[in-house]
Order: sequence, then C-alpha cells, then structure tokens
Amino acid sequence: MEWPELPADHPTPSLIVDASRVRRNLDRMQAYCHAHGLRLRPHTKTHKSQSMARLQLDAGAIGLTVAKVGEAECMSQVCSDIFIAYPTVGGARLERLGELARSQRITVGVDSLVAAEGVRDAARRFATRIGILVDLDVGFHRTGISDPNDAIRLCEWIAQQKDLYLAGVMCFPGHILPTAGEEIWEAYQTSVHDVLDGLQKRSIEAPTISGGSTPTAMQSHRNSLLNEIRPGTYIYNDWNEVRLGVATLDDCAARVLATIVSTPSRNRFVVDAGSKTLSSDRNAAEPDSGFGHVVEFPEAKIIRLSEEHGEVVLPESYVGRPPTVGQTVWIIPNHICVCVNLQNAFYLVDGGNAIELNVDARGLLV
Amino acid sequence: MEWPELPADHPTPSLIVDASRVRRNLDRMQAYCHAHGLRLRPHTKTHKSQSMARLQLDAGAIGLTVAKVGEAECMSQVCSDIFIAYPTVGGARLERLGELARSQRITVGVDSLVAAEGVRDAARRFATRIGILVDLDVGFHRTGISDPNDAIRLCEWIAQQKDLYLAGVMCFPGHILPTAGEEIWEAYQTSVHDVLDGLQKRSIEAPTISGGSTPTAMQSHRNSLLNEIRPGTYIYNDWNEVRLGVATLDDCAARVLATIVSTPSRNRFVVDAGSKTLSSDRNAAEPDSGFGHVVEFPEAKIIRLSEEHGEVVLPESYVGRPPTVGQTVWIIPNHICVCVNLQNAFYLVDGGNAIELNVDARGLLV
Repeated sequence: MEWPELPADHPTPSLIVDASRVRRNLDRMQAYCHAHGLRLRPHTKTHKSQSMARLQLDAGAIGLTVAKVGEAECMSQVCSDIFIAYPTVGGARLERLGELARSQRITVGVDSLVAAEGVRDAARRFATRIGILVDLDVGFHRTGISDPNDAIRLCEWIAQQKDLYLAGVMCFPGHILPTAGEEIWEAYQTSVHDVLDGLQKRSIEAPTISGGSTPTAMQSHRNSLLNEIRPGTYIYNDWNEVRLGVATLDDCAARVLATIVSTPSRNRFVVDAGSKTLSSDRNAAEPDSGFGHVVEFPEAKIIRLSEEHGEVVLPESYVGRPPTVGQTVWIIPNHICVCVNLQNAFYLVDGGNAIELNVDARGLLV
Repeated sequence: MEWPELPADHPTPSLIVDASRVRRNLDRMQAYCHAHGLRLRPHTKTHKSQSMARLQLDAGAIGLTVAKVGEAECMSQVCSDIFIAYPTVGGARLERLGELARSQRITVGVDSLVAAEGVRDAARRFATRIGILVDLDVGFHRTGISDPNDAIRLCEWIAQQKDLYLAGVMCFPGHILPTAGEEIWEAYQTSVHDVLDGLQKRSIEAPTISGGSTPTAMQSHRNSLLNEIRPGTYIYNDWNEVRLGVATLDDCAARVLATIVSTPSRNRFVVDAGSKTLSSDRNAAEPDSGFGHVVEFPEAKIIRLSEEHGEVVLPESYVGRPPTVGQTVWIIPNHICVCVNLQNAFYLVDGGNAIELNVDARGLLV
C-alpha cells in the first residue's frame, strides 16, 4: 500500500497516521477475535486519542482499556465501558475513580488486598459498585499475583464486598515471544486454570478472562481460557513489532516525518527527531539496533539520540543517493506508544487530507 | 535543605519542583558567570516553562536559549533575545522563524550553507535581519563544522549577506567529562581559536563565543575564549549530574512523586512512574544503574520501566522498613529534561504552597 504524500512544507518533526492502514489493522484484529470467539477491548495507551478510540469501537471493540484514571476520564467521552488495567492505588486516584464510576461501567485490575480495599472504599463513598479483575502474574513478573491460592483468596474477598463485584481475572503475558513453543503456552494456561478451578470449587464466578500484549494477540486462542484481549500497539504497529516478526513495514500505520538538518560527514546525517520525539526506548527484539527505522535509508542506523537530534550512520559501503540538508525522511519508531505520548497532536491522513488531532489523553495525572 | 512536604493525597505520578533549590541553583550559576566574565543564556529545554524562564532572567540571564522555533515563539512571551541553538532547516520552520524575527532579536545556530541560505531567505521574505552563530564541532561529533577552514568560509559568506549578521560561533562540548584533564580543554580551546584567528585575519567580527552543557558549565573558564554559556539542566539538576559528580542529591530541585502500587515480592515493588513519566533515558555516567534514584530506598535499583510501571528491586540483604502498597516515594530521574517534557504540568512548591504550572513549550512543532 502506498504511503500518503504530504505537502513539502509540512512541519517536522511530526507524527503522521495513515487512516487506511489503521482501518486494515483494526479489521484484521477484529476478524481474528471474531474467528476465535474473543472479545476485543483495545488498550488506548497507544493512541491516547478519542478519535482513534471511536474507530476501534466502530470496528467492533466491546469497550476500551486504559492505564490511568485520567485516561479513563478522557475516554469516557466516547465509551461507557472502560477497564483500567492498573492498580488504582492512592488518594487522589481513588477519589476520581469513585466519581467516574458513578456514571460509567468501570472495571479495575488489582493485585493486592490494600488496592482492592481502596477501590471498595471509593465505590462506597460514591455510592456505586466497581468491578475488579484480579491481576495474575503469569510469568512477566511485573505486577500480578503468582500464587494461585493468594489470587483465589483475593477473588473470594472481592466477591464478598457489596460495593465491588468480581469481574474476572487479567493476565499480561509480556514474557511470551511470538515464537514461543507449546510448553510456554501450556504453562500460561495452567496458571490461569489453577485460579479458575479454585474459584469454581467455591462457586465464585469470574466471567472475564482477559489477556493482553500485541505481539501474542493473534495467538491468544492458544490459551483457550481467555475470552477477552486488550492489545494496544496493533492499531499502529512499530519497529518493535516488525523486528518481532508480527507486523510488516507496510502494516506500520504511524510514522514520524523528520527533516535532515545536518550532514556532518559523507555517511552521517542528523534529523530533527530526537528523544523528545521518538523516545529513547530501545528495540525490544534487538536492543542495540538503534532508535528506529529510516524508510529512505533502510541500511542506516539511528545510533544516538539527543533531545532534538537523531544521529544516523550509513554503512561505509553505502553508494546510494547521499542524504542532503533539507531532505525529509520517514522514521518508524521502535515503540509507537511512547512516541505518540510525546506529541501534543498528530496528523491523520485520510483520502488526501491531513487532519490535525490532539493526543487527548497524554500527560494526564493519576 | 529539607525537601518540602505535600498533602498525603497529592496526585501521583507528578513532577514537583522546589523553588528554594531552584533559586539556589540559579544564583550559583549566575555567581560563577559573574566571577568569570561570562554571559549566561540558559537553555530552556530543561524546564520549558515561561515562569522558570522569568526566574532565570530575574537572576541575571542575558537572554534565553531554545532548541525549536516553536519554543522560541513560546519564550518570546517573556524574553525578546532568544538563541535557537539548532539548525532551522525546513519550510514550515523557516516561515515561523521569519515571522518571529520581525519582532524579536533571534539568533540561530547553523552548520551548513544550505541552512544559512534558508535563514537568509526567511529574513529577506519577512524584511528583517537574523543573527547566526556558526556551529563548530569541537569533539562531540553531532552537528557542527569540524574543519576550521570550512567554518571560516561559512562565517565569511554570512558576513556578506545583508539579511544576516554573524553573531559569532557556538560549540557544544558534550564529549568533555567533568574530570577531563588540561589537554582536552586545550584541544577545545584550540579548535575555537583556529576559527577565530582566521576570522580576525579577514577582519570578520564574531562577538559571541558560546559554550554549552551543564556538566562542564562551571569549568567554562578553562576555555578562555568563551564569553557566553547556555547550560540547561543546572536549574533542576538530576541523577545524571549527581552521578557525574557535578551536583549533590540536595541540589536536585525537581523530583517525581510516585506511589507504590504493587509489592509482588519481599524485595520488589512497582511504582506508578514508568517510561511515560521518567523516560527510558539511561544514566549518562552509569548506563546500567537503572532509571533513576529512589530517595526513600537509596539502595534500590529501578530495573525495568513499562509505560506506567517502574519496577524496583531491593538488594537481597535489605533489612529496612519494607515498602508497602500506597506508600509514596520520591524519585530523582536520570535526565530531568526529558522527564519534564513528558508532563503537561508540574507543581512549584514555594513557602508551603504548591502551584500548578504548565510545561508551556512541550510537544510543540518545528
């Protein structure tokens, strides 16, 4: 698919999103979910845009996922069924959670009694009920409960609270690579099964079994217990997904338009996209491969970022057209979620028009 | 100096700036510059705040430095003498530069004829004159001209343009460590001298000789040709400066307030400050030392960041008070400039009051 052209004087550095590719990415994930009886609740952390969230809902998403209460407030403008996949700990956060839950269906991911008690108290204070998905550590070892008995006990406690209801369990299989073999997926399924089995024995219902992560999203059926997934990056894709082998260059729907501002030597050039545009996130698959992919110079490596400088080196053997000051290039960032979050706005290109849209939910508190 | 206290329900993650420490940092740099006959033109990239820029000007700064034309537009609200230490290449950028230069004294750093021609054309189009500092590569090898004859030729060309004037030369000694010996500083001075000598022989005036970088700012007198410096980070300092040995923990005027949201095991905890709050910038002095410093747990290491998770590990030998869910901690980020840029707003604490201020110039185009 051709990448849309922009006027020569389009401001740089800027983030450009191709609507055709977005639609294709959304439709593909939705078709996968439909084929496997999975509900899709996209994580909006990737785009942080109400407009993009609307596209996801229109494509068939059953609700949205966010990381912060501030993001939930923002996304509540377009959706009334939001899952906050994050422990909502802390006074200010709980206050706003309670307020929001009065008018919306809000569910929260929690991995401790303290966090669950906070949500209960907030629900009570605002005379509402809040759903909880208990966060299971299935191997990524970030948040989540690893001992199934601890998880069952917390689920049991939640089920007994009149201000809460147990919506189910959530997992983040961030440790599972797209190439993972059957035993890894079996271990994943077993760790969920151990909890569900214990709940069933106690007659506790856990209707939602939520998985996450874009790299494994289209393999979610390999854990047959899942009935909902919440990938984020799939809407845009990025150089991480390409290097992990789950997206092609052509699937990347978001690119940074940058200008070459300096050519200090024959095989080096500097672009106006640095760590304040691309972020200094390394490549997940190959940490030493640089800070993104330069479409016009695929053999080049972005070797160092300053805040507003991206330093690019071409191989000594390079004999193509030399980079020139003033030339624009397209860059596919390693990690599009943090790149988007660095912009106040992005440009959505649809049928020849570039519309400026705010990154609505960036930089919000709580 | 005591770190100011905040109400227990202050929202997290949030960036808190202590006004007393800011004043002390500003006064110290100003005193250094005064003692050595250097003009101080602070780089506002660190704070991106009009209020902080005003404090710098009130403390004695002779003007401001920015990286982007958009930032210059923003800072022109508080200052009419702004140096854009960045090649202003590209149609949209030059258009806005020309417009801005009609009403303000704007100087631009440039390292190529193409970039200089662009500035000249913009100045002509808007019937104004724009000053140029020619960017010399003194060893950091990012932008800048390394051959003195090339630099002299560009200066000569600029001096001949009626729409431009040669304001001087700029250098960024980012390669010089605070521990650098005399030979490194001599080489730095020599590379500037070679250019200035050539200009003098041609009777070309270069009034401003501008150096930069916070780690070496208070050693700027070791290159006796400099008459202006443009450090940025010194207003807040950060964990980079502490590990480089040019600031103490007590000199760090900006901290992230974070909440412990999960304690998955005895010696691990998770805070609500991840790469979208701290940035994934590594420590400049010790790249593998983690993603910042946790004040309450100085022996801890922030080992991994997700977008909204900071995973912290305590040593096995840790026997202090265990971290608890709901507890708040103060984090000093590796690199405060990128951290600030991730926030929409920050809190300035002055005499017991916490005032919310916008990060005015973040995420701006061009």
